[in-house]
Amino acid sequence: MPRISRKGQMMPQSPIRKLVPFAEEAAKKGKSIYYLNIGQPDIKTPQIALDAVKIHSLEVLAYTRSEGSEEYRVKIANYYQKNDIFVKHDDIIVTTGGSEALLFAFGSIMDVDDEIIVPEPFYANYNGFSTASGINIVPVISKIENNFALPPIEEFEKLITPKTKAILICNPGNPTGYLYSKDEIKKLAAIVKKHNLFLIADEVYREFAYDGVTHYSIMQEEGLEDHAIMIDSVSKRYSMCGARIGCLVSRNKEVIATALKFAQARLSPPTLAQIASEAALGTPQSYFDDVIEEYVERRNILISELQKIEGVQVATPKGAFYCIVQLPIKNSDDFAQWLLEHFDVNGETVMVAPAAGFYSTPGVGLNQIRIAYVLKKESLIKAVNIIKEALKVYKD
Amino acid sequence: MPRISRKGQMMPQSPIRKLVPFAEEAAKKGKSIYYLNIGQPDIKTPQIALDAVKIHSLEVLAYTRSEGSEEYRVKIANYYQKNDIFVKHDDIIVTTGGSEALLFAFGSIMDVDDEIIVPEPFYANYNGFSTASGINIVPVISKIENNFALPPIEEFEKLITPKTKAILICNPGNPTGYLYSKDEIKKLAAIVKKHNLFLIADEVYREFAYDGVTHYSIMQEEGLEDHAIMIDSVSKRYSMCGARIGCLVSRNKEVIATALKFAQARLSPPTLAQIASEAALGTPQSYFDDVIEEYVERRNILISELQKIEGVQVATPKGAFYCIVQLPIKNSDDFAQWLLEHFDVNGETVMVAPAAGFYSTPGVGLNQIRIAYVLKKESLIKAVNIIKEALKVYKD
Repeated sequence: MPRISRKGQMMPQSPIRKLVPFAEEAAKKGKSIYYLNIGQPDIKTPQIALDAVKIHSLEVLAYTRSEGSEEYRVKIANYYQKNDIFVKHDDIIVTTGGSEALLFAFGSIMDVDDEIIVPEPFYANYNGFSTASGINIVPVISKIENNFALPPIEEFEKLITPKTKAILICNPGNPTGYLYSKDEIKKLAAIVKKHNLFLIADEVYREFAYDGVTHYSIMQEEGLEDHAIMIDSVSKRYSMCGARIGCLVSRNKEVIATALKFAQARLSPPTLAQIASEAALGTPQSYFDDVIEEYVERRNILISELQKIEGVQVATPKGAFYCIVQLPIKNSDDFAQWLLEHFDVNGETVMVAPAAGFYSTPGVGLNQIRIAYVLKKESLIKAVNIIKEALKVYKD
Repeated sequence: MPRISRKGQMMPQSPIRKLVPFAEEAAKKGKSIYYLNIGQPDIKTPQIALDAVKIHSLEVLAYTRSEGSEEYRVKIANYYQKNDIFVKHDDIIVTTGGSEALLFAFGSIMDVDDEIIVPEPFYANYNGFSTASGINIVPVISKIENNFALPPIEEFEKLITPKTKAILICNPGNPTGYLYSKDEIKKLAAIVKKHNLFLIADEVYREFAYDGVTHYSIMQEEGLEDHAIMIDSVSKRYSMCGARIGCLVSRNKEVIATALKFAQARLSPPTLAQIASEAALGTPQSYFDDVIEEYVERRNILISELQKIEGVQVATPKGAFYCIVQLPIKNSDDFAQWLLEHFDVNGETVMVAPAAGFYSTPGVGLNQIRIAYVLKKESLIKAVNIIKEALKVYKD
């Protein structure tokens, strides 16, 4: 039998995936499960986006341009301008989700064995994209005690080698909910300029910034034109994860020209989803106001309920809709599985994401979980209560 | 300024892309252009597929499973069974176009510097996917004199090294229109079994088999269960290139489990397009009968008109909707550009794909073009006449 590749063997499995059979088994046995494990919001997609695919008059569902239709890119550029990000449509390549934008960015700037520095904990699929691209993630640890703020610049500089090509941040952060300050972005800008690196920022949660703090994009930072590559997506912004539309944005013409070659090889981003995404740009501000209000309420309830539990530490998220929770346990992989297999309160249990999968340093984050607050407040209260009761009886 | 990657520099540009500015300029000057250069059919998408996205009642455009919804995969398996390909839904991973299926296949079975043998001329984007994956295409030349039949087995065996991991065919072929016989598939099966290689077949043009010949899939060949990986797509079958839905099919459980990890990293194939593609499986046979009849007529007209031109050689395609045409010129890159820049018949000209981009052996195919017969018969007749008149005055 012919063998699969080393790369294929090394491809990581999603940290949540291992739990899926246990969740399916629990559901089969009649348990109700609060799914706090994934970032699939329950928020409705704007009607204007859903309607757009219903009223189109296409007769042939044809390819669009590889970089996305010009019309759509012009509208994206307008959207950015409203967010004080001044880019032109030619600085934008429409991609199949933020995922593909990351793959294009990695391919355009890194070769096999090159290194990228990423503050951890980080979005688990960065591991998959780096393995697929043959590059190495070099983690720099951010700590729950500091609310996952940017690690000191010296920590980054210690890790820079001739193979380092870029620093990657997620802002606001999945899984931390951390929102980098303008000052922190300026510090990162200084490092990448000093060491001639790229700075990639995954800004797909831009709108989800709370407590009156404004998101500061790497694209707003002057002097970073050649260094900055922004990754974006419609998935979370308009609760249309299934569209699979994102984009790669850079003022570095060489990066765009190179990413375009990767885009041309795969021909075109999905046409129907581009129709929906273009329409979604017309979503009224009231939609976002309502969504943000809802998430802030959810976050506040979630954090205050968690803080009532003895021995639990939680970093208050300032953005996105995730938080990392440290529990008085040894191994959250076991705990998460045990919740599904052996625990319930009145027939209800909780599915959480063990946090070790968000770290690449071995042994770190074993006592942490990630909670996505994508459920209604009443459900969150019940879910936290289940965790509280579970911790009373769970034995490591 | 930080530098882009060697990989990014090496990424090939589409052979057609270079001509686009000349086509745009010609159009601006008022020339009418017959676009024979790309495989974007003018055939209407089945109404049943277009309607499906209009009548859905989704409120949240959510992710589907990474491998595609089970419902859709079960229906795909049924479709295959009707085509005498007996696979189960678990043998199928739904991908974002055939492009992504190829990338998953390459990643699952090949590491950096591994080799894949491909009969050339081949689909130009195989070059892009191999560069992106860090692997090398080793071409084995098939010849216009033999109608692009499978090269002798000895030619393959000469090229097999310890780095060879797979043979890749496109059947029916883009750009040749060649349809491999059952006997040729059996020969390929014998080589891959003997040398313990994978056999990847890009079968996206399965339905487009003419002259009463039935397509024989690698998935029908017994004993090839561990070796065969089929690439498929809805793009051409239902004239829905813009959907970006394809699939990877294999009975090798390890290949599927590995490809699934790549699929999980990018989360989900596009949801709206899956709705359309699932519905497309209900397309009545009459649609295909009409389409095949149309393509056969187009092919017959095209070939007979081309054969009337002095010095032109053309391989009669038995499938797909492309043909390679050898012209009495030295450089078809120049000729294609000249057609757009400097030639017209009553204000009309033609855009063709220079064939050199479909070869990876340098210097081969320079006097050939690829014609996609995706236009109506009257247009094809006019287009061939333009080529005929052009050859009278063109000077290398």
